[in-house]
Amino acid sequence: MKQFEPRVSKIISRDNKLYRDCLKLSQKKYRDEFGAMLVEGENLVSEAAASGKAMLILYDEKVKLPEEYRNIPSVAVKTSLFTKLTDTKNDQGIVCVVERPKKEKKHFFGVAGSAGANILILDRLQDPGNAGTLVRTAEAAGYAGIITVKGTVDLFSPKVVRAAAGSILRVPVYEAEDADEVREITTMMRKRLVATVPQGGIMLNEADLSEDVCLIVGNEGNGISQQLLAAADLKVMIPMKGEVESLNAAVAAAVIMYRSI
Amino acid sequence: MKQFEPRVSKIISRDNKLYRDCLKLSQKKYRDEFGAMLVEGENLVSEAAASGKAMLILYDEKVKLPEEYRNIPSVAVKTSLFTKLTDTKNDQGIVCVVERPKKEKKHFFGVAGSAGANILILDRLQDPGNAGTLVRTAEAAGYAGIITVKGTVDLFSPKVVRAAAGSILRVPVYEAEDADEVREITTMMRKRLVATVPQGGIMLNEADLSEDVCLIVGNEGNGISQQLLAAADLKVMIPMKGEVESLNAAVAAAVIMYRSI
Repeated sequence: MKQFEPRVSKIISRDNKLYRDCLKLSQKKYRDEFGAMLVEGENLVSEAAASGKAMLILYDEKVKLPEEYRNIPSVAVKTSLFTKLTDTKNDQGIVCVVERPKKEKKHFFGVAGSAGANILILDRLQDPGNAGTLVRTAEAAGYAGIITVKGTVDLFSPKVVRAAAGSILRVPVYEAEDADEVREITTMMRKRLVATVPQGGIMLNEADLSEDVCLIVGNEGNGISQQLLAAADLKVMIPMKGEVESLNAAVAAAVIMYRSI
Repeated sequence: MKQFEPRVSKIISRDNKLYRDCLKLSQKKYRDEFGAMLVEGENLVSEAAASGKAMLILYDEKVKLPEEYRNIPSVAVKTSLFTKLTDTKNDQGIVCVVERPKKEKKHFFGVAGSAGANILILDRLQDPGNAGTLVRTAEAAGYAGIITVKGTVDLFSPKVVRAAAGSILRVPVYEAEDADEVREITTMMRKRLVATVPQGGIMLNEADLSEDVCLIVGNEGNGISQQLLAAADLKVMIPMKGEVESLNAAVAAAVIMYRSI
């Protein structure tokens, strides 16, 4: 993409157009507009390079760019400007502009809609750490894709990307407008909408959750929306001992996703 | 405890001795010395009150103290001073000094050492959110206690307490000096030391993890120490699909703790 082609070997001014465009990637609006996102740190940049979707590497002028990235367009950045590109206090001096995975419904159906495949649904989840952990766990548990309901934290934001540890580059994502659209999609895919409930469901060890599951994870404070709850084909209770009222959202989903593996 | 008895109805000076002692509870050193800790927010204060271990409630002068706490010693605090007592940006105007659970070995053996009981071992875990989530999940999964290896984040620190959502008031904790002491304890309790490994172990679905398990959770960056790994009676691999290298520490432990429930 022309927009992220470096014109200089080192960025020294905050007014540099490329630099300003990269800064904009911290906002969802521009990630959507540019079809790109920023990943930071050695591990993620390395995964981005391996994915073939790395567009531009920016590195702190004090850091030596590793040989392995010689084939990717790159530009050094003055330290005081570089730190503004990263979301962490102790950055590793390297970030990468990556092509943001596609979010079209057709594309999502193609890669995640096959018979038997399981899907994770994030219903207005707010915490970036939770969301990223869920993306990572979903990939590990063999879930084929993730649908987010409007109001969920953007899965391509820096904190989510970091917690997802590379998985966001690989797991297909689709953003649904509302509960109705989620219901439409899961019906069309012939999958079962599964919700966890504190009471009034069947016990986890009595549920078959191996195939064609669309598991809903609710908002941290308010849980799953009434609409999605009403639409659920299967309600499951996770057994809880002691006086615990609920599990962390990412933990509860992990317990279920890993149940049949 | 006399130390936390209120002498005034409202604290208006930063030099008030009681106020200064409460501020000190943000440090492990003083939590150990005073045998107390601070919990904040309506839910946790309510759980602390229910536990019978609440010693003193401090509330923002702008807030009305709920009737249910009338039997617990309490003191109003000038807003500008109150905010320094809390660890959150949008506090709920109420904190509580609580008797810190005992950490003596004998006490721990008594409550967590019974035949069949499972125990969680935190091996220099650093992230307070992870640690708190693990405490909560351990209680929910029926684990009987937690052993921390020196170097683990203090489980009675504010961020851990918050993520544990009340469970820290109920799950017995013992702080071990090192891997040798952990090994000693688990041998004495006749339990199996279980480690998760990326390779060279048996698959999760082939392992019996229902009873007498001491599950080790390793440091986020460096994993389980060589010593504890060498001492493990059972090494287990969690199946991972896609290109995921490892799961979040709290998620991995949750998957195992919930395996046999």
